[in-house]
Amino acid sequence: MSPEPAARSAEYPDVDDAIDPARPPSDRTRVRRLPKRGRYDRGTIDAILDDAIVGHVAWAAHGQPYATPTNVWRQGDRLYWHGSAASRMLRASDGQPVCVTVTHLDGLVLARSGFNHSVNFRSVMVLGTAHLVTDEAEIDASLEAFIDHLYPGRWAELRPMTAQERKATSVMWMDLSEASAKVRADVNHDDEGDEAWPAWGGVIPVRVVLGAPEPDPFTPEGMPAPVVRLGG
Amino acid sequence: MSPEPAARSAEYPDVDDAIDPARPPSDRTRVRRLPKRGRYDRGTIDAILDDAIVGHVAWAAHGQPYATPTNVWRQGDRLYWHGSAASRMLRASDGQPVCVTVTHLDGLVLARSGFNHSVNFRSVMVLGTAHLVTDEAEIDASLEAFIDHLYPGRWAELRPMTAQERKATSVMWMDLSEASAKVRADVNHDDEGDEAWPAWGGVIPVRVVLGAPEPDPFTPEGMPAPVVRLGG
Repeated sequence: MSPEPAARSAEYPDVDDAIDPARPPSDRTRVRRLPKRGRYDRGTIDAILDDAIVGHVAWAAHGQPYATPTNVWRQGDRLYWHGSAASRMLRASDGQPVCVTVTHLDGLVLARSGFNHSVNFRSVMVLGTAHLVTDEAEIDASLEAFIDHLYPGRWAELRPMTAQERKATSVMWMDLSEASAKVRADVNHDDEGDEAWPAWGGVIPVRVVLGAPEPDPFTPEGMPAPVVRLGG
Repeated sequence: MSPEPAARSAEYPDVDDAIDPARPPSDRTRVRRLPKRGRYDRGTIDAILDDAIVGHVAWAAHGQPYATPTNVWRQGDRLYWHGSAASRMLRASDGQPVCVTVTHLDGLVLARSGFNHSVNFRSVMVLGTAHLVTDEAEIDASLEAFIDHLYPGRWAELRPMTAQERKATSVMWMDLSEASAKVRADVNHDDEGDEAWPAWGGVIPVRVVLGAPEPDPFTPEGMPAPVVRLGG
């Protein structure tokens, strides 16, 4: 690692190609802008994916790319998402190249120039081929993993899935071999000489929080709401 | 509008094509799954976009779609985003079809079957062609609009942008003529007979909140942090 210049812009300095990113799995997953922000270890990647409730699936049809928001969850070396068996996105993307991205906004970074403003974030981009899960037992296992990932232990408490529900649900997966993470978790960096400019500088954290649970009228009085594994 | 079946699943009923979505701007922007959730009026679309800090740009290169997270902001009939002039995504997408999606997760919807679980959300998908802003005055105006959208009044307080900073920044836009919104803001819907199942049912709201501002050492004691227009 080459030493980082002290008071350089955090957001748009020139690309510092002297800083070697650690082992990107492919050239197209290499973080090109600000390579110091790139992370390619599965520990970092898994933690960011596991904090996500929603991801965006990039897919293309007739030359038009789409970014479709959907719930995502990880099981081992695979990333999963699901939807209706009638979903246009799922049908069109089976066997096709896709990119699934999850992004957590962690903070607003305020500098004394517009240029040096930034955001703190954690994101993962996964490239690969989307596959439809066709095995019934794997569909069941993946939907159980989805529910229990978000609400630990809930699957066993639910009315069991029917064959008709399984048939109406498509589950997709891609492997994590071409995944990369990008992280900014830093203070603001003003240019030398800008510090004295009379504007507020610093970080304003951003967090995702749960509100008070709103049980429906059929929920027994006093029954505690499920624990939610809240992502960022 | 045909009457909606009372106790049907909120998430994956059969497509009810009898419910006419209100005027989608093109067939490819028509919300196909659960058309009742589609919204095509600019009031709804603008409000969702204006709440967003981060969006995902879907673009493609060499047959591979990408979903790239980036800050987005709206000015009138255009959606803008920006980045380094060296950004691969920006250079590759100029003049190309893109899709920019913003998504706000508003709640977790818990039913008594896995199938009827859902989330409350607001999302907008904009299809169109990405354009690089080439006019210097428009670059300045759009970056000012970006900063002031997030931090009202802040641009005037900042150290002015330099010519070098402007040159290092690329600003992109697309028009909003092919935009559609999708909204779920509802309670849980269990199948008839499931209500008595002994599991918690209801909604757990999800919100984005700001933490306590963390001023840097150069910020004068007692200077208030900028007001943030916090999105969902």
